Amino acid sequence: MIPGPTPIPQSILKAIARQPIKHRSDEFTSIMQEIYTNLKYIFQTKNDVFIFASSGTGAMCGALENILNPKDRILCLVTGKFGERWAEIAKLRGAEVDILSCNFGEVITPKMLQDHLSLHKPYKAITLTHSETSTGVANDLQSLCAIIKKTESLCIVDGISSICAMPCKMDEWGIDILISGSQKGLMLPSGLSFLALSAKAYEIHKKCLFPSFYFNFSLHKEALKKNTTPFTPSINLIFGLLESLRIIKNIGLENLYHKHKKHTFALRDAIRAMGLELFVKDDAHASYATTSIIPPNGIKAQDIIKHLQENYNIIIASGQQELEEKIFRIGTLGYIHNEDLIQTITALEQTLQSLGYKFENKIGTQTLLEKLKMP
Amino acid sequence: MIPGPTPIPQSILKAIARQPIKHRSDEFTSIMQEIYTNLKYIFQTKNDVFIFASSGTGAMCGALENILNPKDRILCLVTGKFGERWAEIAKLRGAEVDILSCNFGEVITPKMLQDHLSLHKPYKAITLTHSETSTGVANDLQSLCAIIKKTESLCIVDGISSICAMPCKMDEWGIDILISGSQKGLMLPSGLSFLALSAKAYEIHKKCLFPSFYFNFSLHKEALKKNTTPFTPSINLIFGLLESLRIIKNIGLENLYHKHKKHTFALRDAIRAMGLELFVKDDAHASYATTSIIPPNGIKAQDIIKHLQENYNIIIASGQQELEEKIFRIGTLGYIHNEDLIQTITALEQTLQSLGYKFENKIGTQTLLEKLKMP
Repeated sequence: MIPGPTPIPQSILKAIARQPIKHRSDEFTSIMQEIYTNLKYIFQTKNDVFIFASSGTGAMCGALENILNPKDRILCLVTGKFGERWAEIAKLRGAEVDILSCNFGEVITPKMLQDHLSLHKPYKAITLTHSETSTGVANDLQSLCAIIKKTESLCIVDGISSICAMPCKMDEWGIDILISGSQKGLMLPSGLSFLALSAKAYEIHKKCLFPSFYFNFSLHKEALKKNTTPFTPSINLIFGLLESLRIIKNIGLENLYHKHKKHTFALRDAIRAMGLELFVKDDAHASYATTSIIPPNGIKAQDIIKHLQENYNIIIASGQQELEEKIFRIGTLGYIHNEDLIQTITALEQTLQSLGYKFENKIGTQTLLEKLKMP
Repeated sequence: MIPGPTPIPQSILKAIARQPIKHRSDEFTSIMQEIYTNLKYIFQTKNDVFIFASSGTGAMCGALENILNPKDRILCLVTGKFGERWAEIAKLRGAEVDILSCNFGEVITPKMLQDHLSLHKPYKAITLTHSETSTGVANDLQSLCAIIKKTESLCIVDGISSICAMPCKMDEWGIDILISGSQKGLMLPSGLSFLALSAKAYEIHKKCLFPSFYFNFSLHKEALKKNTTPFTPSINLIFGLLESLRIIKNIGLENLYHKHKKHTFALRDAIRAMGLELFVKDDAHASYATTSIIPPNGIKAQDIIKHLQENYNIIIASGQQELEEKIFRIGTLGYIHNEDLIQTITALEQTLQSLGYKFENKIGTQTLLEKLKMP
């Protein structure tokens, strides 16, 4: 129950355990053709979507290392650890990085962005994190993109934990580069990442002085035209991806968004019913991927996590870096079912009682069950 | 029977098909600790060996994008397509690239390198390809490295198809950066790459102006100290790697080298007995990973490959780029057994006979069987 890697359906694990095939073959080309088409659906775009053999951070590097030149100005919207990563990558490219941040657990509001932009010279690019996995907030991506769209800046979005979990509409919202990873909403192991690219971003890439070779937009675009990849793909994970995209297409994105939303809000209500405090106060800013919870006074997050694992074999996540002691996180991302959530909350109640926290017996599970019954 | 991706032992496929575990956990840290230790063994080094979630080209980028600055001088020894890739990566970094090449199917001799270096200003780095998968030659790496060791240049080696197949001794031979990939001698699916790094190369990295973030030496070195990786690793392939390294350690590197050598020379003798011409004439320059064969007059390489696949379900490789029509390639890399070779040669004999080529009946298989009987 962590926000990635997420559990994997048996049919996907079976697909991954196949003997590899030659990646320059008709069979593989036809697999890639289906995958490239289905990726456009989950990214809600008509643009090309590249596949990298890398973790999600690789796609983040691909985004910036194909467009930034030394001294270029970039604005990074930072709501947590993964927002900071954009800034770190940009700095290594010699870019001039401005940061617009907020208290962790809160979001960058459209007004904050508007005010910032009105006071500063135009940026070549602006980076955003849709669902910030480290805190559990989701930024109001549509409104932020609408503001960026009025400027000349490229709009670059980390959709690693939001794609397939929350609505994220590349073309409609005007995103120029949208990236994601495999071990989240796609229900795959880690090791693949994705990057969808607008025509405008591709034009700007052409003027990049020292672009990345491995993540190079031109090389990937050329290969995509032939339904292949420029370098050896991660063949066995591609077998899994083929299956995962078929499952997602069958279920339908809207149904997937609805499931993630329902799980998140049922979990939030259950947590509140137990008298616990959520790290993200405002329901409107809750990511559907992960929920951050503040431990009760006098109980350490690490003790809750350890007790759940040792007594119930349920794995949840700690906070990261400065949030390590302050929160624990429960993922609702990917191949998670009602039963998983019910088991988790039941075990969490018993854990908290064992650790001395007092609250109305079973109120968490009761609340959860009621909310999960709703359509 | 292609030179990667290679067949995978069942126990490795089973390991890969596990449900992923949390990568920041004691269990995963202990897996990584064993892996980092065993990687030193297969790279024959006391240096750190990093693991990237990427294909082999990613590790090549890691090597150059951590050390090269614009205008730096680099020499690339080119014996085929993969030697050229070093030059392409270096050019994208704005480096000044000199190329020392030979006819494809031949090697760069120590004398050629010595002569070239005596005529040119010192280079920051020199890149080599140990086993050139595109042609089937193996350079005399030990002698070439000995020459480079006398200069101030970093010695950077592509060991993608040689590691675990032919002797490649990083420390003894004085290699500064040695890279490899998972889908070759390691008997794994594609999607992981490796980079071993000398102290000298690490010092030079520190002065790199715009280093890669994803493949960054400093970030990977820091993570390795804690038996982890800086970004989400390719968890399921790591499960496979743990198993693969155990198998290799049990067999022993010397035994693996011997098996690859025996297969290669048995195959070469069988091909010659059938009256066919080898693309790499000199036995001393034969890679143990792949053998390139020139089709008989009037028969197309593509027809041989197609006939083998359609009638015997045996997949061999074509040449790449300008060699596509000129050669076909049989891999002897990784999890290949005597039986695989025997089936391949038997089927190749029948294929060539069907296509109208005349030679002493079964002479290829007979020669192969005799040679395979030798110790």
